[in-house]
Amino acid sequence: MRLTPLAASLPASVPFVGPEAQERARGATFRARLGANESVFGPSPKAIAAMREAAAMAWRYGDPEAHDLRAAIAAHHGVAPDNVMPGQGIDGLLGTLVRLLVAPGTPVVTSRGAYPTFNYHVTGYGGVLHMAPYRDDAEDPEALTALARETGAPLVYLANPDNPMGSWLSAGRITEMIAALPGDCLLILDEAYADFAPEGSVPALDVADPRVIRMRTFSKAHGLAGLRVGYALGHPEMIAAFDRVRDHFGLGIVAQAGARAALADRDWLASVVARVGEARARIGAIAAENGLRALPSATNFVAVDCGRDGDFARAVLRGLIERGVFVRMPFVAPQDRCVRISAGTPEDLDVLAEALPEALRAAGAAGGGGPRSALRGA
Amino acid sequence: MRLTPLAASLPASVPFVGPEAQERARGATFRARLGANESVFGPSPKAIAAMREAAAMAWRYGDPEAHDLRAAIAAHHGVAPDNVMPGQGIDGLLGTLVRLLVAPGTPVVTSRGAYPTFNYHVTGYGGVLHMAPYRDDAEDPEALTALARETGAPLVYLANPDNPMGSWLSAGRITEMIAALPGDCLLILDEAYADFAPEGSVPALDVADPRVIRMRTFSKAHGLAGLRVGYALGHPEMIAAFDRVRDHFGLGIVAQAGARAALADRDWLASVVARVGEARARIGAIAAENGLRALPSATNFVAVDCGRDGDFARAVLRGLIERGVFVRMPFVAPQDRCVRISAGTPEDLDVLAEALPEALRAAGAAGGGGPRSALRGA
Repeated sequence: MRLTPLAASLPASVPFVGPEAQERARGATFRARLGANESVFGPSPKAIAAMREAAAMAWRYGDPEAHDLRAAIAAHHGVAPDNVMPGQGIDGLLGTLVRLLVAPGTPVVTSRGAYPTFNYHVTGYGGVLHMAPYRDDAEDPEALTALARETGAPLVYLANPDNPMGSWLSAGRITEMIAALPGDCLLILDEAYADFAPEGSVPALDVADPRVIRMRTFSKAHGLAGLRVGYALGHPEMIAAFDRVRDHFGLGIVAQAGARAALADRDWLASVVARVGEARARIGAIAAENGLRALPSATNFVAVDCGRDGDFARAVLRGLIERGVFVRMPFVAPQDRCVRISAGTPEDLDVLAEALPEALRAAGAAGGGGPRSALRGA
Repeated sequence: MRLTPLAASLPASVPFVGPEAQERARGATFRARLGANESVFGPSPKAIAAMREAAAMAWRYGDPEAHDLRAAIAAHHGVAPDNVMPGQGIDGLLGTLVRLLVAPGTPVVTSRGAYPTFNYHVTGYGGVLHMAPYRDDAEDPEALTALARETGAPLVYLANPDNPMGSWLSAGRITEMIAALPGDCLLILDEAYADFAPEGSVPALDVADPRVIRMRTFSKAHGLAGLRVGYALGHPEMIAAFDRVRDHFGLGIVAQAGARAALADRDWLASVVARVGEARARIGAIAAENGLRALPSATNFVAVDCGRDGDFARAVLRGLIERGVFVRMPFVAPQDRCVRISAGTPEDLDVLAEALPEALRAAGAAGGGGPRSALRGA
């Protein structure tokens, strides 16, 4: 096996360990699955029906042009089909986009602690990551822009709303950032959580601007993480570039059918957004009951500040996982003082409410000193 | 948009135009869909049931380790899970494998007229294709081996049974080829059609041999082309290398569930293989009725020799498409004297039986001279 020098230099790595691997290690399934920002409220019943109907037709390859899905997405956003590139989730689209723009040595800008799968793709194509720290638990567009200018990067990544913190920037700040970027630098605006974002935080689409490509997904509010469909929105030249390297038959017939039906069901989307809002409030209340602070969120998850350092939060996370609550947390300091809890059903959050005080107690005991005093001091 | 020099050098291309695009151009759907070697007999009812059940759970990401599917495939083949890498169809797996082994300038060996999507991936990563011609309408392992030796290629592609000709090599010739390959050269043995292959044409699995990686799919005999699941079988080190660059969450929960159920339903597979055999015989009979020769096939399609040159076969192909029969054909001479017709239902083949004489007549007229005399002369 003669790996390329680049491939040989890469570790075998996994951006995220799946909850299933943790369940196999624990020997028990999770009681509440709140770690991957999935939509526990499920897909639209109409999307389920469409997938079920398509299942019998799964002997057919999906349309490699995804014509109908593309047209539906274009109509939904008021753009042309050539502004839309559907793909296998934002993960898949990011991989293709990075492949198009990143060669060994290419500088790429992102935030320290932002989406690890983007970094995985950049590293996988030999790019060199330059990272700006978060500011006030949010991505810092001015720092990213400065870093893009300084490094000459052709590509900058920013998620709005942000993952893992749940914070968001105003549409105005995003627009200012775009205006300030070097003219030949492309901003990937990852809007996986845009469906949950408050008014005024999602800039108007301007597909005539070649400096921005926006990523949307059916994995979050649409509840179709396990179907693998997302799409990019952008300038026709950027969108057409995907055709140079993409896996044309990668989006199957079941995926295309499910996504189309999900997109059309706006009532379901609204009901999910409402239930996510309730869940966020409940997570905030549970945090407060335990002396913790929930950070404001524009997403379907809440970063809960555990009030001490990363080691303490990691101990809390372990405690939650041991008690059957799948959660994740930010990777870098100081954001790693938080655990990240996805919106759950009322039943899921009952489990959280039961497990969190125990996990805090255990973490406090492990770290020495009672959790109460520690938390009060935070 | 600052594409990498490699990406900038690539054309926007599609290895295959989908039948849906042709249907949109025609303004009518095809009466018989016999061009993509899909399984018109559909997936196992058990696979359909599994996909339908999984549809409601599509809010969950699929297990990134695909643990259960991998274990089931391993058990089926009598190998270990670390010999198995599931992925998004053979197309997806080929892309990942090429990425691992091919850098700009890397020589890669395949047959002229073999699978275009493999070539697309090689070109897409900057590799340089070296092609051996077919011999007697089959891939030529000795010529491929010689070319691998001559070019120092780290990668050789061979499909057995072959697409687009339907021909096959004996297990013995494949084994001899492997033995004759340079020790550091990897053979991709594309066995997409292995489920249809006659006894003695599929070599025994030897996953201790690092020189071979075998590709299997759920898209053909299992009737799940629109679900996007295939797998690689090989040495643990080669299999583990996929973890360096693969899209870990790319195989969704619906795909994993459908594939597992399909793999378990051996009765369905046997019934499909039997019906494909009947369809091949019927295609042979229809060809003979029209004075044409069907080539022997070890697959779910038949290459029908139209008895003249590529221009004539292309005219026949056009005639079939105009009459609502979706078919494809080999791209290079002299194999392009054939049209490639996938196994159809009896109803599909009734449509073919009706359309073929008309298409031949039209092609003969277009080419000047009656088709009968032309065919008699072939």
